[in-house]
This record gives sequence, structure tokens and C-alpha cells, in this order.
Amino acid sequence: MNITKFAIPEIIFGRGSFRHVAPCAQRLGARRILLVSEEGIEQAGWVDQLRQMLSAEGFEQAYYSNVSSNPRDFQIEEGARFYREQKADVILAIGGGSTLDTAKGIAIIASNGGKISDYEGANQVHNPLPPMLFITTTAGSGSDVSQFCIVTSVERQVKMAIISRTLIPNISIIDPLLLTTISRTQIIYSAVDAIAHAVEAYLSIISSPLTELHSLRAVDKILAALPQAAENKSLDAMEVLSSASLSAGIAFSNASLGSEHALAHSLGGHFDMPHGVVHPILLPAFMRYNLDFAEKKLARLGEVILNHRQGNDRETALAGIARLEEFFGTLGVSTRLRDEIPPEKRDLLKEVCQMAVNDACTLTNPRPTSAHELLTLCGEVW
Amino acid sequence: MNITKFAIPEIIFGRGSFRHVAPCAQRLGARRILLVSEEGIEQAGWVDQLRQMLSAEGFEQAYYSNVSSNPRDFQIEEGARFYREQKADVILAIGGGSTLDTAKGIAIIASNGGKISDYEGANQVHNPLPPMLFITTTAGSGSDVSQFCIVTSVERQVKMAIISRTLIPNISIIDPLLLTTISRTQIIYSAVDAIAHAVEAYLSIISSPLTELHSLRAVDKILAALPQAAENKSLDAMEVLSSASLSAGIAFSNASLGSEHALAHSLGGHFDMPHGVVHPILLPAFMRYNLDFAEKKLARLGEVILNHRQGNDRETALAGIARLEEFFGTLGVSTRLRDEIPPEKRDLLKEVCQMAVNDACTLTNPRPTSAHELLTLCGEVW
Repeated sequence: MNITKFAIPEIIFGRGSFRHVAPCAQRLGARRILLVSEEGIEQAGWVDQLRQMLSAEGFEQAYYSNVSSNPRDFQIEEGARFYREQKADVILAIGGGSTLDTAKGIAIIASNGGKISDYEGANQVHNPLPPMLFITTTAGSGSDVSQFCIVTSVERQVKMAIISRTLIPNISIIDPLLLTTISRTQIIYSAVDAIAHAVEAYLSIISSPLTELHSLRAVDKILAALPQAAENKSLDAMEVLSSASLSAGIAFSNASLGSEHALAHSLGGHFDMPHGVVHPILLPAFMRYNLDFAEKKLARLGEVILNHRQGNDRETALAGIARLEEFFGTLGVSTRLRDEIPPEKRDLLKEVCQMAVNDACTLTNPRPTSAHELLTLCGEVW
Repeated sequence: MNITKFAIPEIIFGRGSFRHVAPCAQRLGARRILLVSEEGIEQAGWVDQLRQMLSAEGFEQAYYSNVSSNPRDFQIEEGARFYREQKADVILAIGGGSTLDTAKGIAIIASNGGKISDYEGANQVHNPLPPMLFITTTAGSGSDVSQFCIVTSVERQVKMAIISRTLIPNISIIDPLLLTTISRTQIIYSAVDAIAHAVEAYLSIISSPLTELHSLRAVDKILAALPQAAENKSLDAMEVLSSASLSAGIAFSNASLGSEHALAHSLGGHFDMPHGVVHPILLPAFMRYNLDFAEKKLARLGEVILNHRQGNDRETALAGIARLEEFFGTLGVSTRLRDEIPPEKRDLLKEVCQMAVNDACTLTNPRPTSAHELLTLCGEVW
């Protein structure tokens, strides 16, 4: 086994853990907090609750909410200017992956200067970041535990992957109660994103026993809990999803991802589609694409998906992929690329695939991936 | 589920990861390092190698080696004075649990002052500690990842448990190559300690899905790898032990332990026996003692130990405990208390049990534990 690194934030998990925010901010030495969130979270009432708890403990606050799904470079650069103007000393973010990635980007620029595109790729962030305290409101992005930050370059129409150990927040609060205000669609998109994280981290050429443990647990638990969570938002099911998504985040943060996510980033950057929408379309095809290069691992995944082996390694792997595809089919989400991209834009896929091969996630895919192969895969799932 | 906290150090794992020490020290801002180790590690040649690597990168060093098995309060207080005199800024420890606990104790006093006994119990350490970089040379203590520090009070003849999140080192390097210079006995004692950590953390009333995952993995892997590791120090088996012991450490650091460890601490403090020696004697008896209070969990452990279920929960649990007892029997270690305590000292056990009930580890035992019950258990395993 190669040398592997493994890092996660301090995690506070459980129903009501949200209420521990003030002592956490205290421990990070906060006096004036930059709070980052967005409209949906405000409307759900969480931002007000948070601000009241912080005020009650005497923390000063500045609030930044120029956050969009697929956060843009200029929003981050604006947020960093605001952080400095406000002389904040801790960044507290509450939201889904877009909000948390916005907060990470602000932290990078606040202490490293420059533009966010200066930090694209792995290990380009050199100065320590301001303390970060994150509260996730979805179960799936993994941004609350990960070394990843995904930002859209408006000019290049691509999602940049920024990967650095310093992007792991200091403390991550995971409270399943916060999931009760998100929509059925968001629950599903987040959960399938977490499945993709778990699967791709498991297949990654730099996976380790610890990341593999978390990947398998995540796949097992999400498949078990998602139908009930989507059906009636049962709090028990939401808690399982939260915990499983945490495992998926721990896995991919430390094992990275693969070509499926590279293409997902590139598609997301070009077509501004929600990140979760692409995985039910792409993931089974990419699992098959990797079969000859990761047969044993795909068989183990198949065993977890099916709850039993079915024939030899190859047969178990293929049966597992087929079952996963079937599972995605029951969720009422798009399963073909044509459902999400207008036909007149299909020609853009060539450029999208060209960009995807430069994404850092392709480096850890078991099968070396070319733009041509990605385009073929897009054709298969069109 | 209750609110749970989960924290681990940044981990660098793998054969040869030892060689990454200088960049790690760099990242912690080290200029003048207090290196803590002991004679056995010096003799194995690791201290010299380490000092050369650090010198080559320009780090100043001071060296402290007054470390004993079951570290004493006065050794720690002396080490803290030395740290201050030397104006060190980072603590780098290489060794087993005793060395790492000595380093933690030094860190506490260096930045909090006073005597080490001032910090006994949970959450008594309030000031941030100097950065700590640990390199474990055993697979079992878990001190390299845990929130625990165990120090013997010479006056009271008891092991004090100090538990605080700040005791988690910043970076932990786990290199299975370092295990090749320890003795067969040390390998076994460390591994059975790790089994006890995993089992007690699993049964703990504050276990969480994440700690349980790590507990079960640890038990499974240690039972599989220990015979071969003890037989021929196979590097593959050592690597599995390292990784499993890491999981056990992650589990107990975040779920704490139980009454078995409380008694082990107290016995160790009184009779200065190596920590690992007591678990094959005590653990099966304590598992049976907890049966009515943790039947389902003991059944799950039984399933992992046996690789299958055997009848109902209770039967599976009991068969698992019996198999574990059998396994300890094959290791050629003591399995009765009378093998380790001279008969004329048996009367001291009453006092030992009295002290054990005050150990913080009893708080998380599934069955509430009295001194009288501990004494009865000592009689059973005498």
C-alpha cells in the first residue's frame, strides 16, 4: 500500500447539534463572524435562528449572501473583499455545497489574495486560512468535511476544482433536523451525489482501507434510507442519510474522485445544471467503463448494492451496476443526457469533454481517460 | 441518537511515511523541536534517523528521554520544565503509548502550568497546547490518535485518565516499518490493548455509527492479522495491525471506554504491570458482565469474531466471547490474575477496585459498575 493521508474536520453530529454553534465559534476565537448563507436557508428560518444565537453570546456579525447554485468566481472575490472590509476573523457558513464552497473560496482569497482561479488544481493554497465553522443543510455535497472547493469560472464556463488540505473546515456541525426544510428534489440530488462520491472514491487509485470502509458504508446506508427520506422526510431516514453522506464525504475528501465527477464538473460549468442531476445519468455508465480496471472493487460494490454476490466477480459487479441503475430509475429523475441538454447544444459536448480531462478528478480514475472516451460515454447516455 | 462529537488528527499512514516528518514539522511552524522518546527506540536506531532528517532540514532540537512504561507525574513535570528552558515550539514524540502520553503531559503543563494531576478527568485542559507531531512505534495504544493521556500518580499509586479534545495531536504518522523492531511480546500486548479499545468503545453508551464502524473493523482485522504478526513479523500483517489499531484508536477516542479499562488503569497504577498484560485476563469476563446491558451489541461483536451468527443474540454473544477467550489462550500470555499478582498482594485488590470506580472510563460502561462488582470480577479471573 502507498502512503496515504487522511484528514477530516472535528465533527459534531446529531439532532439539535446546530444549537452548539456559539461554543464552537468561541473555541475558534471568533469576535466578528462573517456569516455566509443564501436565500433558501434564510426563508427556512435557519439564518435568523443562527444570528440570534450568536448575538445572544455577544458575537459581532457581518452577513454575505451573494451565493448561487454553482458558485461563480466573482461572487467569491466579492465575498473576500467584504470579509476584509468587515474585519471578520472567523467564517461561519450554513447551507448546501454551493454555500460552503463559496465560504471556502472567500477564506482562500481572504488570506492568500489574488483571484480564485490562481488556486485551481491540487495543493496550490499556501497560507493558512481563517478558521471555518460549517453547518450543512443537505446530505450529499460533502463540502462540509472535504478538501474540495468547486467554483465556476464565468469566463471559461468550467467548474474549477480546488483541492487542498487547508480547505477542511475546523469544525463541521451536521444536524439532521436542518434537512427537514429542503425539498424532495434536493434530498434526491444530494443523496445521488453522495452515492457518486462513495463509488468514485472507492474505485480511486489512491483509496485506502479507511476511505474504502467509509465508501461501502455510505453506499449501503444511502440505498437503504433514500426511498423513505424522499417519500416522507422521516427524521430517522434523514439521520441515516446525513451520517452516510458524511462517510461519503470522508471517503472522497481523502481518496479523491474519478472521471465521472470530472465530466459532471465540466457539464455543470457549461450548462449550469444542478450538480446532482447528472449522476443518475452518468454513474452506471462510468462504472461499466471502469470494469476491466477495477473488477474486484466493482464486485465488492455489487455485493453491497445487492446484499449478496451473484456469480463471479464480473457478474456480481454488473448485477450491482444494473441494480443501481434500476434504483435511480425509481427516483423519478432524468436518466438520459437528452433530458437535460437541448439537442441544439449537443455539439458543445466535444468541448465539455475536452475540458473534463483536465479536471484533477481524472487523475485518480482507475482507467486512464481521454476526451474521446468521454464523448463516447456521453453518446451512450444521450 | 444523541449528539456525538468526532475528532481525529491528520493521519499520514503507510510504509516509509516516517520519512515525511520534516515537511510535517514545517507545516506546524517548528523552529526548535522538543523530541520525546526513550531508550528502546534509541537502540532500534529510529531516534538517530529522525534527528538526522530534522537536522538536514535545519530544525533545532532538544531531546527528552526520561520516559518509562506507565509514565510518572514527575517525569512529565520535568519534561515541561525542559520544554520551557529549551524554548521549544513543537513537540515531536516517537514511541509507544507511554512516550506519547509523556509528550501529551508535557504539552499540557507547558501551556497550562501547574501539576499534571490538576487536569485529571474530562475537559479540564483549557489553554491550547503546543503543536504535536506523533510517530507511533506500536500498534495498539491509540495514544497517537486519541484524546486520552494516562499518567501514574506516584503518590496515589493510580493511573490518572486525562481526557480532552486538545490532546489529539495535530499530525500522526503511522509507519508499519517501525513495528519491525519491537518484540513479539510488545506486538501482542499492543494488539490485545487495541482489541479491548475496540470492544469497550463499541459497548460504550456514547458510541456512534462512526465509532462502531471503526470498532468492528478493528476487531475483525486484529483477530485475522495478529497470529501471523506475532509468528514472523510479516510486514503485511504488521500493516493490517497498524491500520486496525488506528481504527480502534479512532473508536475509543470518540466513544471512550468502559469499566474494564478503568480496572486496567487502576491495576497498572498499583502493580506497575504493562498495560497490555491485563486485557486477556479481564476482557472476556467484562464482556459477560455487560451481557444483560448490551446483548445486541455483544451479539454483533460475536458475529464479527465468529464470522457468522450462532443461534440467537445471547448465544452468538456468548459464543463470540468464548472464541475470543480461546484466541487469547493461543497467544501464550497470562489469562489469570494470579499469574501477574503475587498472592500476598491479593488483599490490595479491594483498594484497587475502589480507585477504579472513580476512573472516567466507568462513566460510559453499559452496566453501572460498583467497587464490589469489580472485586467479584477480580475473584472470577483470579
